[in-house]
Amino acid sequence: MKKTYVMAPGPTMVPEEVLLEMAKPMIHHRTSQYKDIFKKANEGLKYVLKTANDVFTLASSGTGAMEAAVVNLLSKDDTAIVIRGGKFGERFGEMCEAYGVKVIPVDVTWGTPVDAEVIKKKLAENKNVKAVFATLAETSTGTKNDIEALGKVVASTSAVLVVDAVSGLCADALETDKWNVDVVCSGSQKGLMLPPGLAFISMSKKAMDMVAKSNLPKFYFDIKEYKNALDKDDVPWTPGVSLVRGLCKTMDIIKEEGIDNVIARHARLANATREAVKALGLKVYSSSPSNAVTPVNVPAGIDGEALVKTMRTKYGVTIAGGQSELKGKVFRIAHLGYMVEFDTLTAIAALEMVLKEMGYKFDVGSGVAAALKALAG
Amino acid sequence: MKKTYVMAPGPTMVPEEVLLEMAKPMIHHRTSQYKDIFKKANEGLKYVLKTANDVFTLASSGTGAMEAAVVNLLSKDDTAIVIRGGKFGERFGEMCEAYGVKVIPVDVTWGTPVDAEVIKKKLAENKNVKAVFATLAETSTGTKNDIEALGKVVASTSAVLVVDAVSGLCADALETDKWNVDVVCSGSQKGLMLPPGLAFISMSKKAMDMVAKSNLPKFYFDIKEYKNALDKDDVPWTPGVSLVRGLCKTMDIIKEEGIDNVIARHARLANATREAVKALGLKVYSSSPSNAVTPVNVPAGIDGEALVKTMRTKYGVTIAGGQSELKGKVFRIAHLGYMVEFDTLTAIAALEMVLKEMGYKFDVGSGVAAALKALAG
Repeated sequence: MKKTYVMAPGPTMVPEEVLLEMAKPMIHHRTSQYKDIFKKANEGLKYVLKTANDVFTLASSGTGAMEAAVVNLLSKDDTAIVIRGGKFGERFGEMCEAYGVKVIPVDVTWGTPVDAEVIKKKLAENKNVKAVFATLAETSTGTKNDIEALGKVVASTSAVLVVDAVSGLCADALETDKWNVDVVCSGSQKGLMLPPGLAFISMSKKAMDMVAKSNLPKFYFDIKEYKNALDKDDVPWTPGVSLVRGLCKTMDIIKEEGIDNVIARHARLANATREAVKALGLKVYSSSPSNAVTPVNVPAGIDGEALVKTMRTKYGVTIAGGQSELKGKVFRIAHLGYMVEFDTLTAIAALEMVLKEMGYKFDVGSGVAAALKALAG
Repeated sequence: MKKTYVMAPGPTMVPEEVLLEMAKPMIHHRTSQYKDIFKKANEGLKYVLKTANDVFTLASSGTGAMEAAVVNLLSKDDTAIVIRGGKFGERFGEMCEAYGVKVIPVDVTWGTPVDAEVIKKKLAENKNVKAVFATLAETSTGTKNDIEALGKVVASTSAVLVVDAVSGLCADALETDKWNVDVVCSGSQKGLMLPPGLAFISMSKKAMDMVAKSNLPKFYFDIKEYKNALDKDDVPWTPGVSLVRGLCKTMDIIKEEGIDNVIARHARLANATREAVKALGLKVYSSSPSNAVTPVNVPAGIDGEALVKTMRTKYGVTIAGGQSELKGKVFRIAHLGYMVEFDTLTAIAALEMVLKEMGYKFDVGSGVAAALKALAG
């Protein structure tokens, strides 16, 4: 017998009751039945994002919400600061360039967080900057940025702060309103415990004022259309009905646990994973690790891609390898979404089994012991 | 006891085994397990579209595929012919305008099909036209266009023929390659019997040559990214994993019945619906009715919106009202996707019950009798 565990940083595992909720017979979206579900899901999103701003739900992957931020906030030849500390930060830059927005890149060494003072300086030097694009948890490097500090720096300028919280939401703290985050982008298949297919974007008043002026071309992702519809608990295009139904259910689950407890649970699992990694003589790649995913340096003499593949094919545990320049150099163990202590122990146990098979020298059992010590402590 | 039936032109009902397939535990998309599913789904899409062209699957609603056609084929200041005979034809025009594409509108009286000769003339007068945007089944009016005739007219020019087959696919015949349809746009929640959330777009070689030259800005819908990924059975952004799993299953169902039989079944249900409507003394709105949905004129003295609402709330049968200028003037009964003879009889029966309650004068039972006669005949 082999059970399967998805412990990559998205898609994540979906609670059984959510799977069954989404398996209910189809309903039509222009009905009061759907509107009630949609309304409840929207209230839940505000609760999770800690915001009074509107949160718009798109039928797309998280990348769609990121594009929606770019095309709705900016105009041709506008200038934006893009913090690039990994694959997803870079994506914001690529999007800006695709739409003719000038990018002031702030390149951050992979695996380290951005220094808010650097952004403060850049903003002071470039008064024409309209938006700062940042990442809460950079999935490719498992690195958390200090969004609170960025919020302080950006709020006093005319620029908006846009945060990619696709993988960070529910794992790392995010106080949208308190921290002055104008725009939050997220997706369904991470901390929100749903299959992929929905993306979310919240917009502050400052952001909506920019939306009104933006001249970049758009249609499917036009936030003005979503706003007009949302005011009637409606959507402009056919929504992801079954996924929104599931969202309504995961919102119940998150509310019952409490969003602060959800984040504390992620912190606990992430800490246990890091302790286990240390006990195994391995090194966490990031100097500011996110609670969503722990990136680990592949030790010398071990084939990083084979490690990830063996964990999945032999033990049923799907973790992630490295992306782009980190391919083969790190592996990433997620503790994201529908996961509890025993799942993290499972991940560490499978890792130990594979490391042993691959000839890595360590004290078998030391990883799970360290993790359990951290979890029980 | 009340059962519910979704008989609007999308979202449509989803077969129970497909609902359960999508309720399976999440899997990661960068695995051979997912690639096998994706590959099989792609082969199925080619079978359904009757094409050897690549069919790209987007995580979006059908509108996303329509936008993908516009932004990938055209360049700024290009000229396109847009056939506008309803809300969805108009949408192509709105998209073109949003992206700075010049539109030559061909306005067709709602409820009637376009005359291919008119398009032939327009193309002859405007040699610079790069694309002709047409609709297989215009959902808002329930009208089918003669795509074969349009294909003949467009193929000999340098323009590409783009067909919105979102609601027409599987209901009305579509021979993508035989009819020289360069681009077909479709969605998951209609004839393909899935929840909303996936969109599809096929591209001929002529279309892909235009994609290579297009300069309109795009990122999420950039077909070049999808093409690069597809060549490795992969996707550029996180795909709608559970929906693609469901797609793989509906492809099995469609293949087992045979696509020509699927279309013949839709023709049979549509014909029975039209016969019932006639027997009830009502009139079909369209002069070229699609097999996807039958639009019916609301008879004098009857409140069209109340009729639709009562069918849903009292009898559990969701049909659609009129959109835009047809609001309150027509109701639309779909026979689309996961529907058999008995579902159509149910729709007619519920319609008769409501018509009787609303004081419409007719011979109760004449509708179901006429439908059954057509079905058994």
